Amino acid sequence: MAIPNIPSEGLKFLALGGLGEIGLNMSLFEYGDDIIIIDCGLMFPEPYMLGIDMVIPDISYLRERSDRIRGILLTHGHEDHIGALPYILREFNPPIYGTALTLGLVKEKLKEYDLDTKTDLRVVKPRGKVELGENFEVEFIRVAHSIVDGCALAIRTPEGVVIHTGDFKLDQTPVDGELTDLATFARYGEEGVLALMADSTNVEREGYTLSERLVGDAFEEIFPRCEGRVIVAAFSSNVHRVQQVVWAAEKTGRKILLNGRSMIANVQIARELGYLKIPDGLLIDLKELPRLEKSEICMITTGSQGEPMSSLTRIAMDDHKQIKLEEGDTVILSSRFIPGNEKTIADLMNHLYRRGAEVIHEKVSEVHVSGHASQEELKLLHNLVRPLYFVPVHGEYRHLVKHAQLAQKVGLPKERTILAVNGDVVVFSGLEACIADHVETGRVFVDGKGVGDVGNVVLKDRKHLSEDGMVVVIIGINQGSGEIIYGPDIVSRGFVFEDESQQYLDEAKKVVLDTLALVNPEVMTDWSEVKLEVRRVLRRFFNKTIERRPVILPLILEM
Amino acid sequence: MAIPNIPSEGLKFLALGGLGEIGLNMSLFEYGDDIIIIDCGLMFPEPYMLGIDMVIPDISYLRERSDRIRGILLTHGHEDHIGALPYILREFNPPIYGTALTLGLVKEKLKEYDLDTKTDLRVVKPRGKVELGENFEVEFIRVAHSIVDGCALAIRTPEGVVIHTGDFKLDQTPVDGELTDLATFARYGEEGVLALMADSTNVEREGYTLSERLVGDAFEEIFPRCEGRVIVAAFSSNVHRVQQVVWAAEKTGRKILLNGRSMIANVQIARELGYLKIPDGLLIDLKELPRLEKSEICMITTGSQGEPMSSLTRIAMDDHKQIKLEEGDTVILSSRFIPGNEKTIADLMNHLYRRGAEVIHEKVSEVHVSGHASQEELKLLHNLVRPLYFVPVHGEYRHLVKHAQLAQKVGLPKERTILAVNGDVVVFSGLEACIADHVETGRVFVDGKGVGDVGNVVLKDRKHLSEDGMVVVIIGINQGSGEIIYGPDIVSRGFVFEDESQQYLDEAKKVVLDTLALVNPEVMTDWSEVKLEVRRVLRRFFNKTIERRPVILPLILEM
Repeated sequence: MAIPNIPSEGLKFLALGGLGEIGLNMSLFEYGDDIIIIDCGLMFPEPYMLGIDMVIPDISYLRERSDRIRGILLTHGHEDHIGALPYILREFNPPIYGTALTLGLVKEKLKEYDLDTKTDLRVVKPRGKVELGENFEVEFIRVAHSIVDGCALAIRTPEGVVIHTGDFKLDQTPVDGELTDLATFARYGEEGVLALMADSTNVEREGYTLSERLVGDAFEEIFPRCEGRVIVAAFSSNVHRVQQVVWAAEKTGRKILLNGRSMIANVQIARELGYLKIPDGLLIDLKELPRLEKSEICMITTGSQGEPMSSLTRIAMDDHKQIKLEEGDTVILSSRFIPGNEKTIADLMNHLYRRGAEVIHEKVSEVHVSGHASQEELKLLHNLVRPLYFVPVHGEYRHLVKHAQLAQKVGLPKERTILAVNGDVVVFSGLEACIADHVETGRVFVDGKGVGDVGNVVLKDRKHLSEDGMVVVIIGINQGSGEIIYGPDIVSRGFVFEDESQQYLDEAKKVVLDTLALVNPEVMTDWSEVKLEVRRVLRRFFNKTIERRPVILPLILEM
Repeated sequence: MAIPNIPSEGLKFLALGGLGEIGLNMSLFEYGDDIIIIDCGLMFPEPYMLGIDMVIPDISYLRERSDRIRGILLTHGHEDHIGALPYILREFNPPIYGTALTLGLVKEKLKEYDLDTKTDLRVVKPRGKVELGENFEVEFIRVAHSIVDGCALAIRTPEGVVIHTGDFKLDQTPVDGELTDLATFARYGEEGVLALMADSTNVEREGYTLSERLVGDAFEEIFPRCEGRVIVAAFSSNVHRVQQVVWAAEKTGRKILLNGRSMIANVQIARELGYLKIPDGLLIDLKELPRLEKSEICMITTGSQGEPMSSLTRIAMDDHKQIKLEEGDTVILSSRFIPGNEKTIADLMNHLYRRGAEVIHEKVSEVHVSGHASQEELKLLHNLVRPLYFVPVHGEYRHLVKHAQLAQKVGLPKERTILAVNGDVVVFSGLEACIADHVETGRVFVDGKGVGDVGNVVLKDRKHLSEDGMVVVIIGINQGSGEIIYGPDIVSRGFVFEDESQQYLDEAKKVVLDTLALVNPEVMTDWSEVKLEVRRVLRRFFNKTIERRPVILPLILEM
């Protein structure tokens, strides 16, 4: 692939993922010989990506410029910002900059891939600055979000300062007291900012996003009236959420059982780094459960999305050895219903109710708040930073459009809001800016150990297989005489229930035989025509008799 | 199957579907020799039901008692209440009672199955009464809902009166002025009601459900400020919604283009029956479009759920011949985001924004209201009817639990709220009531022309196939000598991209050959052992090398 022709002058901004989609956040700035990367996230597979484990950005663009990469800057430790690192670090290994918790989570992840000792992780504190190459100086700016230790970035370049917010909200009463550092945003605003790139996730929401502290208030209102066990399901990375559960449990005399691999790992990391305070005596393990009254138990667990293999789902299905729910038990789903998971979560709740438990969730109580800024917060930020240009980031296309409209509402001229998507190369030069070029970007599918070997052909086959299954037709032919010496035999999977449909499959065999009878074996040299014909007649037969369209695989074996 | 032993005394109530799930509404009352059926609905397939077209209730219970069925009573014309009729009517054909529009929609549906002339459809007006068998007299009671002409049923039986609400809300300003007939509910309440069965869909929502009229207000606010085309996507059965779009279009000088097979059919039925008023000159067809300014066009269409084959999706993908969206066009999604469809709808919106259109939907404007009663409406109904017993219906399990709790809040003793699920036989006898028995019920999958032939084995195979595809291994064996005379050959679908993975599949063949080499053909009589071994080694090989678990189908052909 030829290197695309991109103007060599000026500051370039380019997203390899995350612009026009949720997840896969990875973008880069380029000036002269220097490239810096912001975040390196994955995307969880969408429903049509059958069998795919995760999606990572296509980094072809970087591959050809890897000697110019000066570092990867991480805004925070969520999977959609750090999850693709292990795959990218296999190819090039620049220093990685982030706050202590962010890098703590990265390190844990790299251990799984045996990359932790080979990677140069450099902790930066909020208001700390790092230089990258000749052309970049980056200051980390504290922001509040649904994970602790998140930061925005102020990137000083020869063309001016660019502010990239990462994921943020303006929580006025954050659990750890670490406010979004508006003073620093204001300082840059006073100095003059070339461009602002800001989180668009919640741009459709009016008003302000509620403070994380309100969730703690909800816990403190709910816990005292729970007679039985309390089970709180939350994302393991939401350290403040866990902290507030701990406080509520402590106040109501409950011990805490941690559950779920990532919950246990993340709590340990956060405790070690001082972001989470749990008195030693408060934590118990499974074998201590029987010694406690139900009213002395609080479980903090993963599985809030109804993941089929999670122990919360097993508990709900009454399939957990140590925990049998009863009337009086309470389950709090303290997380967002991620779009696409609504049905699975509803099933989880129905099963919990069948066990007799009461279920509390975000739709009926303040047991979850978002980590992303709503419209009024975004307006405040725009007014504080007052950039020359605005590029909405972190959102699906409609979010980017809405965020551009919001910027215009607070006074930015339309021609200075730049609506870029993945691959668009935004060039800033001498206070001018435009989308100057477009490079190929894409999504790489990870399926097991295979990275990128599953493409659209394979996915299309999986989709087809999933709908009507597969029918294999085997015919053995004598290579010399062309006589049928085996079959036709028909084997199917996912098509009809074979035990009850033998007669039907026998009819299908007859259809194949009728087709073969028309073939004169003596003049037959190319059996691929016959294959096509067998597929055609069977497709017609199945469509007419049963209205199904299985994948049909005719195997004609010349022996 | 033996007929279950159910107490022969008293009034029996039994749901074959809809109790503990959304959709599939079908229940029955039984007294002496008489059975009456309430509704006969389908369920749209859940994501795990791969390749399934629709789901209908299992009617085994009725099959053995078909001579006692006195009629089917329909509360309203939604698919989850009438959709299974064509399948049920193939087996028995009792008279069907419903209001004019409900039966108009049923007739249209039966035409497709050639059943319309064979079925005895009997129109009943609200406050009309019908007698069924010796033991039932049923009065239809007008209710407001998201389809016109809906009714609740007051079922007079030798044990007392049972009120079944169907789907309802208490809209105080319905578009057609047809209020939920609270006077009749009150009259029965004064007389004394044995049992109430009421819609639980919205029991999680506080307060009151908004009036349908508010959607009209929203249209009248939105339409005048639209410069280009207005496209409104709604459910075709929502006649009042269509009426309000028509009014807004008329007022702003727009002609109306109907789009979508069911939209065109339902509008015609509703107009013929007088439920929908559209002046003749207002409707246009596609070929008249070019003659009109964009500001003179209003399209009413199906496809609000982002259905891939709908023309709204084609318009959004810029794949529609006559309609190319531009900046200034407005798309109003005037319907609920059905759980499970959120991602598809979000994709639809993103594509519409890419075309330059503005999108308005229920999350940002009052362009949709629910058709089901919220908590305060349910409380009012309970207080008006004051039944001796309450059985929550029409909901997932958590809705039924919440509705039972609501009934208790307005004063019904807990022991008189009966939490029944599909198959539970509730018996009312001498003012006593209990769940006396449970019969088998279930879901029957319709896949193409096959009804019930796809079961869990086939679905499990489809799931497995969808995740990692299929690998077929073909080995031809000489029946006499046991020699390998063909293969091993490996063919796959949905597993790896074969063009790029030939080398990998060759390695797999070698693994099979190594296994076969261990077999002594001279003592081999049962090749099924070898098949199992081939599957085992390949499974291990794929798991180790690539971490995938395809369906492996070893074919050992003895010739």
